[in-house]
Amino acid sequence: MNATARTAPPMRADQAGLFSAPVRVRFSQCDPAGIVYFPRWFDLLNGVVEDWFTEALRLDYQGFHQTRGIGLGYGHAESDFFSPGFWNDRVDVFVRVARVGGASLDLALTGFRGEAPVIAARLVIVTTSLAERRALPLPGDLRAEAERYRDAQSLQTASGDTP
Amino acid sequence: MNATARTAPPMRADQAGLFSAPVRVRFSQCDPAGIVYFPRWFDLLNGVVEDWFTEALRLDYQGFHQTRGIGLGYGHAESDFFSPGFWNDRVDVFVRVARVGGASLDLALTGFRGEAPVIAARLVIVTTSLAERRALPLPGDLRAEAERYRDAQSLQTASGDTP
Amino acid sequence: MNATARTAPPMRADQAGLFSAPVRVRFSQCDPAGIVYFPRWFDLLNGVVEDWFTEALRLDYQGFHQTRGIGLGYGHAESDFFSPGFWNDRVDVFVRVARVGGASLDLALTGFRGEAPVIAARLVIVTTSLAERRALPLPGDLRAEAERYRDAQSLQTASGDTP
Amino acid sequence: MNATARTAPPMRADQAGLFSAPVRVRFSQCDPAGIVYFPRWFDLLNGVVEDWFTEALRLDYQGFHQTRGIGLGYGHAESDFFSPGFWNDRVDVFVRVARVGGASLDLALTGFRGEAPVIAARLVIVTTSLAERRALPLPGDLRAEAERYRDAQSLQTASGDTP
Repeated sequence: MNATARTAPPMRADQAGLFSAPVRVRFSQCDPAGIVYFPRWFDLLNGVVEDWFTEALRLDYQGFHQTRGIGLGYGHAESDFFSPGFWNDRVDVFVRVARVGGASLDLALTGFRGEAPVIAARLVIVTTSLAERRALPLPGDLRAEAERYRDAQSLQTASGDTP
Repeated sequence: MNATARTAPPMRADQAGLFSAPVRVRFSQCDPAGIVYFPRWFDLLNGVVEDWFTEALRLDYQGFHQTRGIGLGYGHAESDFFSPGFWNDRVDVFVRVARVGGASLDLALTGFRGEAPVIAARLVIVTTSLAERRALPLPGDLRAEAERYRDAQSLQTASGDTP
Repeated sequence: MNATARTAPPMRADQAGLFSAPVRVRFSQCDPAGIVYFPRWFDLLNGVVEDWFTEALRLDYQGFHQTRGIGLGYGHAESDFFSPGFWNDRVDVFVRVARVGGASLDLALTGFRGEAPVIAARLVIVTTSLAERRALPLPGDLRAEAERYRDAQSLQTASGDTP
Repeated sequence: MNATARTAPPMRADQAGLFSAPVRVRFSQCDPAGIVYFPRWFDLLNGVVEDWFTEALRLDYQGFHQTRGIGLGYGHAESDFFSPGFWNDRVDVFVRVARVGGASLDLALTGFRGEAPVIAARLVIVTTSLAERRALPLPGDLRAEAERYRDAQSLQTASGDTP
């Protein structure tokens, strides 16, 4: 039990119906204590967000940056760490839309080794103009797809469906 | 302004009397958008915490891990990002003790480019037995030094002293 | 063409029959110039070596470190870079055993984007006692499997087989 | 002794008169074996090269990339590793110009913990147009400064001066 956590440990059963991606812990992500060095959790989570855009929202994450000049950086990032990550662990990371804002997208991510909670994170994407370095309203396609995903996840939770 | 931040932007004047360390942004910490990739902020902050142990608390950070078998990992980490970090930026990071717990140490860190706020972070250290992978009460020397630092910072704030 | 390369650009056809693993370039591996930052190529190659141990040699890479106390670090590493790696590139990396030494294993790795050569690297593993920090003769199982792999790759090359 | 090294271990006395920068090994650069993970050596060396441009050549490294559109990436990188790097080690890294080419700059770097050799590396910079992704002749200021540095280092070696 992590008494310093800001949130209760998540339960895997509550993630039913959400997009998930497996993360494999590499040697190079572990520190001299033999566990994942905590900044690398955030790096791994960013990779899951990239995959979520592509596979769940069917949007071109790379195109936002490189074609449309829209940054998808973070205005806030946080995580509780319930259990260390070890070399060669497989951690399944689930993505929930917590809030679709005017110029932001608030994601709640949870990670599990089997049924055991490992991390519970919040990543708040803020859409920005890369050229002008200022906030941009959420583009229409991103808003529409994020809302669609959010509404679908609510139905899942309401009905207790499992994928 | 970062509308998604959980905290108000910090003011540099309010950090008077706190330990600070300069962080220089390297090419390798920047991403294709030309700014510090957010997990690397957490890595840079961890370096500041190492220095704070050594220089402000006069404790042997490395010795905790390698001689005493005490892990100083994090149970919680979070940051608001008020402004991007650019290559060759110098960011001054200040360390405040927010709370000395039974088996944890809650640090508030703020970073400024000149007077401009860049980040405001919380890092909660949990002391653990590296051999047994379980929580340990805060060791006596760490508790004593952290409380001494916390009490000194309160005096600074109360009197409005600047270093 | 890379006029500073120490080796001729490799040809994909010459890698027939070798173990290969696909590497996907992540956002976080790219630098402000938009291409893979070169130290991260070495990190990616190390991941391929981990996979080669497990999948091609059928040896427990992690067990060498964590159970047997045998380090598999590198005494020498080098690479020619023929072409930049870009975000979301898929690069296929092939592993050839260049030499099985008394206390070392010399690997030649090549990477291709489609047919185009991207990198040609040499990584020389030296087996060491992690407790005593000194060289160890190549363990019998590693020697046997590396020689078996080397002999099989020679047959492939001699006969011109493609997988 | 590293029997797999391609070069003889360097001697610190032979680096007299060369630019050097101290590198401090951070917790986050060490792996589960407790030593510097080898790709991070290359990252540390790149930081030394940045400093060498600024402090020894008096050239604006960042300006090449961001103002002039000239890439200073590597066409070849290699290193012998003579001794592991440990957490909190101070390693002094020396920079020698091995060759000034038409569109490349070949640097020989050596690192020492006290008198003990740790690494001996070669990094070959190739100057490129970032917009067109093709090789560029060495810019005049870089050629002039690199040749000046190279000629000064030869005098040092010839006369046996120490700084």
